[in-house]
Amino acid sequence: MYIALDAMGGDHGPDEQVAGAIQALEETEHQLILVGNESAIRGSLNRLAPDSAIVSRLRIVHTSEVIEMGESPVDAIRKKKNSSVMVAFDLVKKGEAMAAVSAGNSGATMAAAIRKLGRLRNVSRPGIANAFPTLKKPVVMMDVGANVDCRPQHLFEFAIMGSAYSSVFEVNSPKIGILSIGEETGKGNLLVKEAYEMLAESSLNFVGNVEGRDIFQGNVDVIVCDGFVGNICLKVSEGLVEAATEMIRAGIMESVKAKLGYFLARSVFQKFKKRVDYAEYGGAPLLGINGVGIICHGKSNGMAIKNAISEAGKIIDNKVNERIKEDLVQKFTGAVENK
Amino acid sequence: MYIALDAMGGDHGPDEQVAGAIQALEETEHQLILVGNESAIRGSLNRLAPDSAIVSRLRIVHTSEVIEMGESPVDAIRKKKNSSVMVAFDLVKKGEAMAAVSAGNSGATMAAAIRKLGRLRNVSRPGIANAFPTLKKPVVMMDVGANVDCRPQHLFEFAIMGSAYSSVFEVNSPKIGILSIGEETGKGNLLVKEAYEMLAESSLNFVGNVEGRDIFQGNVDVIVCDGFVGNICLKVSEGLVEAATEMIRAGIMESVKAKLGYFLARSVFQKFKKRVDYAEYGGAPLLGINGVGIICHGKSNGMAIKNAISEAGKIIDNKVNERIKEDLVQKFTGAVENK
Repeated sequence: MYIALDAMGGDHGPDEQVAGAIQALEETEHQLILVGNESAIRGSLNRLAPDSAIVSRLRIVHTSEVIEMGESPVDAIRKKKNSSVMVAFDLVKKGEAMAAVSAGNSGATMAAAIRKLGRLRNVSRPGIANAFPTLKKPVVMMDVGANVDCRPQHLFEFAIMGSAYSSVFEVNSPKIGILSIGEETGKGNLLVKEAYEMLAESSLNFVGNVEGRDIFQGNVDVIVCDGFVGNICLKVSEGLVEAATEMIRAGIMESVKAKLGYFLARSVFQKFKKRVDYAEYGGAPLLGINGVGIICHGKSNGMAIKNAISEAGKIIDNKVNERIKEDLVQKFTGAVENK
Repeated sequence: MYIALDAMGGDHGPDEQVAGAIQALEETEHQLILVGNESAIRGSLNRLAPDSAIVSRLRIVHTSEVIEMGESPVDAIRKKKNSSVMVAFDLVKKGEAMAAVSAGNSGATMAAAIRKLGRLRNVSRPGIANAFPTLKKPVVMMDVGANVDCRPQHLFEFAIMGSAYSSVFEVNSPKIGILSIGEETGKGNLLVKEAYEMLAESSLNFVGNVEGRDIFQGNVDVIVCDGFVGNICLKVSEGLVEAATEMIRAGIMESVKAKLGYFLARSVFQKFKKRVDYAEYGGAPLLGINGVGIICHGKSNGMAIKNAISEAGKIIDNKVNERIKEDLVQKFTGAVENK
């Protein structure tokens, strides 16, 4: 099973991409296609794994163009047909790869995936799912940025897609909540109130409204929201962890006693950091496309890339797209006509 | 200057309310009116400050009704005209108090404030402002829950009201950002894009889009958003701090070495906790009403109540409402016609 990796995307391409690829080859059974500038990729390979035999499980597909972080996604994928991200998804389209992974311009990755692979039957809008670390199992939140203005139908579909994805975390019959500003029925904005009714009438395991604080408790498995709200939740969480770490770090540097204390308790903080580190979760899948695509953070390091590759494998192994297709037919209860 | 305190509101009324009142009398010049069941209030006073002379700076206004946390705000304020929160705002209306503070049912507090005091001239929708702790000065976010479905005009008014409130934190010419999902102009949902244009055309010190992660950096002074998004940001932040604390606490309890380390570094964590603790910030003002009203967390303890009282005083001292009235006229550049 080949997975295509956009070797040029991200702030640290192709070095971190190649490092992630090497780790993935060492730790998993996957075969990889690195897509990008061949001489740059070979340069990284020679530096990072000069003698490694695993490189034989790796193909390189040369591309001449790269989509930069600041480019307009729609323009970029139209003009740069030979860009690494477009070619990576083209390999999936042609059946040469089972999935594509990119840490490049997220908008362009999304646009390339939809352009090349199209949507799954009955999906109105593909969306990005993100696994949040919690006190228990990860919670899948969807959408975290693909669709800024949504209709109730879209949130309903996110519930189905997010549930299918939660199988990756060994969740059965996932509990689904809708993100709102109070637990009581009837709380929320117009979008939430209408989507609530659709979810309540369906055969999904819908538990009602959940609040922002519930994201990290792990009492539900899937939380649906529009991509504007979801993206802000993601960035608020990242920003708060960063700011809190900085506040505590500054405090610790102020006294010898605190430094010693930190030294003794550091394993606890390392464990916490590992638990909330985006790199541990690899990337966020774009669900609803006719194939598998993983969007990684621009700042992804080798470990994040390796985890994203392994996540792509789990999505394939768990037949997430088949589940989505089935559930869209079975759970709709006529909702599809209202699209 | 009298400030009216709803002594019955909140999970721990009247004990914590009375404790907060006593602290406020000890540490500030304010005079207080405690509104609620007189015998319950006197009971708390006798327990908490049996011999204190400061009690002479305190009046009690007896009320017979209490609005409970779960009640529908609109029904409750219509049926319970003699409830502590309604009477507290009535005292402001009659000029017997300069401000009212309540930790009771937030919706009812908001409804009571608007019913009794009305809106400031040219304000379409009062909103709740919240001060977030950051690496620098607190950042004012508005609205954090009063208005779940907003029009661009409302966000524009939140910018003016939030700026006026930022004077409490000694901010001059506040930098205003609009919460979105990317820093570039043109990113965001329909509401954000339209409000962006209104803000950009005004004479406000508007810096453009800010992202969720920017809330805690302190690089802007005021962040505007609709009340649905703002409330979720608030709850996500609270939930993440709680979950992170729990994860770290559990880790520390696992080893003697980590416990010792925590013991040595605990001043750092206590300082951090103080910095992010809602109780340090007291309460969130409802801005845009013709008077001063502070909404406190239901779980407020004495310190939170004391800080809310002191915040009410600062809002009065800084003439926040006069600033709002002036700026709504000066900065509108014709926008008021589009309401």
